[in-house]
Amino acid sequence: MLSADELDRFQVVLVGARNPLNIGAAARAMSNFGFLRLRVVHPFDAAFREARSAVDAAPVLAGAEEFSNLAEAVADCSLVVGTTAVGPRTPQAPVRSLEDGAQAIREHALCRQAARVALVFGSEKTGLSRQELDYCHLLLRIPTRAAHRSMNLGQAVAVCLYEMVRGGREQAPSAPGDGEPLATAGEIERLSAVLVKTLQLSGYPQLASAEEKLRRLIRRLPLTVDDTHEWLGLLRQIEWKLESIATHLRKED
Amino acid sequence: MLSADELDRFQVVLVGARNPLNIGAAARAMSNFGFLRLRVVHPFDAAFREARSAVDAAPVLAGAEEFSNLAEAVADCSLVVGTTAVGPRTPQAPVRSLEDGAQAIREHALCRQAARVALVFGSEKTGLSRQELDYCHLLLRIPTRAAHRSMNLGQAVAVCLYEMVRGGREQAPSAPGDGEPLATAGEIERLSAVLVKTLQLSGYPQLASAEEKLRRLIRRLPLTVDDTHEWLGLLRQIEWKLESIATHLRKED
Repeated sequence: MLSADELDRFQVVLVGARNPLNIGAAARAMSNFGFLRLRVVHPFDAAFREARSAVDAAPVLAGAEEFSNLAEAVADCSLVVGTTAVGPRTPQAPVRSLEDGAQAIREHALCRQAARVALVFGSEKTGLSRQELDYCHLLLRIPTRAAHRSMNLGQAVAVCLYEMVRGGREQAPSAPGDGEPLATAGEIERLSAVLVKTLQLSGYPQLASAEEKLRRLIRRLPLTVDDTHEWLGLLRQIEWKLESIATHLRKED
Repeated sequence: MLSADELDRFQVVLVGARNPLNIGAAARAMSNFGFLRLRVVHPFDAAFREARSAVDAAPVLAGAEEFSNLAEAVADCSLVVGTTAVGPRTPQAPVRSLEDGAQAIREHALCRQAARVALVFGSEKTGLSRQELDYCHLLLRIPTRAAHRSMNLGQAVAVCLYEMVRGGREQAPSAPGDGEPLATAGEIERLSAVLVKTLQLSGYPQLASAEEKLRRLIRRLPLTVDDTHEWLGLLRQIEWKLESIATHLRKED
């Protein structure tokens, strides 16, 4: 089992959930296994209101936070984990079995100072979109059979959380707290934005189509907070230079 | 992963399920993880009819078998496994964590010739009754937290079946098929009935109150099919003798 403090580092993030019963079921499984931090990204309004009235997991639902997009919902997390039934055709992040992935996630949560982990679940109909998968450092696959891959949302949440708590105690490293704190998704996003802006100012050709690839490139790096600040400093300097040149040129016209 | 043949040895048994959504959800999780044999024991009629119309797991529901009591539903199974949220106050069978229990169950299913395993889930409201727990050789506990033990039925089924298939391949013994076939619950029940009858004929005091204890005593033994036949032969001989004496005495009156 994970300690209360360790459980507290996990955020369960439901993206675009449509069915109040599923939101309620996800919250109940969270409560069963001790994960109390729920975030919902643009759920169907009525569904979310109806789910809130479910008695089974009232504290989890009452404390749920709402976000208008996934970027904001995971901004303070240093590890963003997606779940996928099929595995995307061209996976943007490494795909691991739930069992192997859970082990890696536990180690991250236990070793990194104040690391926050987001476990992200897509909507019942479509799962996570390509763009949403882009925010994930790691994708988990539950071992369902090929003939019937897609799980019910509430059941998928239950199975993933069970795997997180199963046998966690034995596997916890004896000396947690070592390692540099990793950058959060929000810090990485700021870095990405500055890089894109810099490239834009540099007249990078077809930037719009390359932007997604650039973001992935950065997310794949195990950047620490300090790294990010260093890089931001460097890029901002370049950005400032490019902007001041652009301003100067406009004045000359 | 278990092979199709191994999966086929598992029966999921729902006792007194009341909510069609839960029956449908259980069937969907079964289909996801490749367990296709569903048995229902006196479900609420309307609930079962409504569940059958669920599209998500149509083949599992269409093939479901109905029974009027648990004894009949598990009669052909040599290992009957119950699930419990809390653990009964005085457990009639050993209680093991889901993880440890699953390992033992897989070994049973893989090693014993044609062994059938029943995974039994109680109703949403009350779980398994004391009498129903009496039919179980083993009880599984899902590691939910003390503050919120009781899981949703469909989610409990999903978590248990996930644990059965997780890492099953690596842990399978290299030479399955050894070991004598164990007696089924039906054979054990016949043996129990003959013993009770024999004791009754012997004038055992307060037999009614001791019957439950006797059944447990027998179920706890790892009896093979051959053992059961031997014991049945012995007991039937005693029973015959007692009955013939009783008949003789009645004639003398």
